[in-house]
Amino acid sequence: MTRFFVSPQELQPEFLVLTGDNAKHAKVLRLKAGEEVLVCDGEGRECVCVISDVSEGQIGLVVRHRQASQTEPGVRVRVYMAFPKADKLEHVIQKATELGAYEIVAFPSARCVSRPDEKSLSKKLERWQKIAASAAEQSGRGRIPQVRALASYAAAIQEAAQADKPILFYENERATSLRMCLEQGGFRTASLLTGPEGGLEPEEVAQARQAGFQICTLGRRILRCETAPLCALSAVMYHAGEF
Amino acid sequence: MTRFFVSPQELQPEFLVLTGDNAKHAKVLRLKAGEEVLVCDGEGRECVCVISDVSEGQIGLVVRHRQASQTEPGVRVRVYMAFPKADKLEHVIQKATELGAYEIVAFPSARCVSRPDEKSLSKKLERWQKIAASAAEQSGRGRIPQVRALASYAAAIQEAAQADKPILFYENERATSLRMCLEQGGFRTASLLTGPEGGLEPEEVAQARQAGFQICTLGRRILRCETAPLCALSAVMYHAGEF
Repeated sequence: MTRFFVSPQELQPEFLVLTGDNAKHAKVLRLKAGEEVLVCDGEGRECVCVISDVSEGQIGLVVRHRQASQTEPGVRVRVYMAFPKADKLEHVIQKATELGAYEIVAFPSARCVSRPDEKSLSKKLERWQKIAASAAEQSGRGRIPQVRALASYAAAIQEAAQADKPILFYENERATSLRMCLEQGGFRTASLLTGPEGGLEPEEVAQARQAGFQICTLGRRILRCETAPLCALSAVMYHAGEF
Repeated sequence: MTRFFVSPQELQPEFLVLTGDNAKHAKVLRLKAGEEVLVCDGEGRECVCVISDVSEGQIGLVVRHRQASQTEPGVRVRVYMAFPKADKLEHVIQKATELGAYEIVAFPSARCVSRPDEKSLSKKLERWQKIAASAAEQSGRGRIPQVRALASYAAAIQEAAQADKPILFYENERATSLRMCLEQGGFRTASLLTGPEGGLEPEEVAQARQAGFQICTLGRRILRCETAPLCALSAVMYHAGEF
């Protein structure tokens, strides 16, 4: 069923109207009166609707029923990633959205080569949010993950440590596997934190440990900074029974 | 420790010589006599060596000891991927190598848009093999996964079905999860088969089932064709106790 995202205020109980890009998209798909579509508020609620009329620039819908999203994972996993070089973060945002991330949060760390200034960051965040929205639509998510940036490493670990399972992946960790960490009791929320190209500094790892993080390995091979969060997210979703 | 790949015949018991690109790379890294390096044969055997002399275009090494690779996974997982569009296969080869794939095998299927002809394929295979070699080196693998192409879907399922766990991922499968499949007994080899952008046809899925494949879901979200094999590979490695 074709999926459209509207704002939570637009998700009305009986009738809905699709306008703007949604109406254009519906026109491209040549949707006709009588066909069913799914309208999501991007926060996990959705309505199964029937198209009642198609006119220039807007599509009228009748709501059949409302439901909680059927495709959102049972666990809320936030991906915390140090700013990588080039467009790697775009790649991670797209893939992490498909894989079911709840939010994607970028932050600076000591060895980050790329540190967007405030002005370019606000433009980038806009672009990143669009990538998340498009990936959410294509992968059939009921929620568009929010993409955010934090001003410091300290802010990132402080926030990420609030999860039931705050986990930092470190290439010099040998003893603690992700499995050991995940098998220590259930969880509803997790934070997966990874470093930039050059890795995290030992002091940064110690700081996270002190804040309550578990420090884990992702195996004996060194993963690129854009591979690590996606590998970890896949494994956490598998562990949580998503597939 | 810096890692160099040589051919299996070059991995001599007492003395080794690095030439060509390896010697150039050593020069770029400014390696000096007395430093330790790791020399791998790309098939899982390696030698810890000490640099004895550095001269124009070649580096002499004394072998300290030989060992089986310390970084290869305990399970052999082959990734079978239908030819995707554009350079997506390059992306999958790079990431699957980091994640520990044993081989990466491309094949045509009914809905493949991209079907390289024989001439362009041989060039591409050469390029793909270089990507695997470079990713193996960077991630610290002891083995360079072979990248191959098969001529038909039938050939792909016939070959892939030889593994202990031949698994096909299908977006219309709801009942069987990857976990259910992996928990049915141990395995030393697995084949993970995924379709192109447009997915596999129901008849192709039936054909694989008949050949002995298990048909699994990767969850309720639709993954892009380049995301699915990497998500599956991450989960299989996690399940196998790699991290």
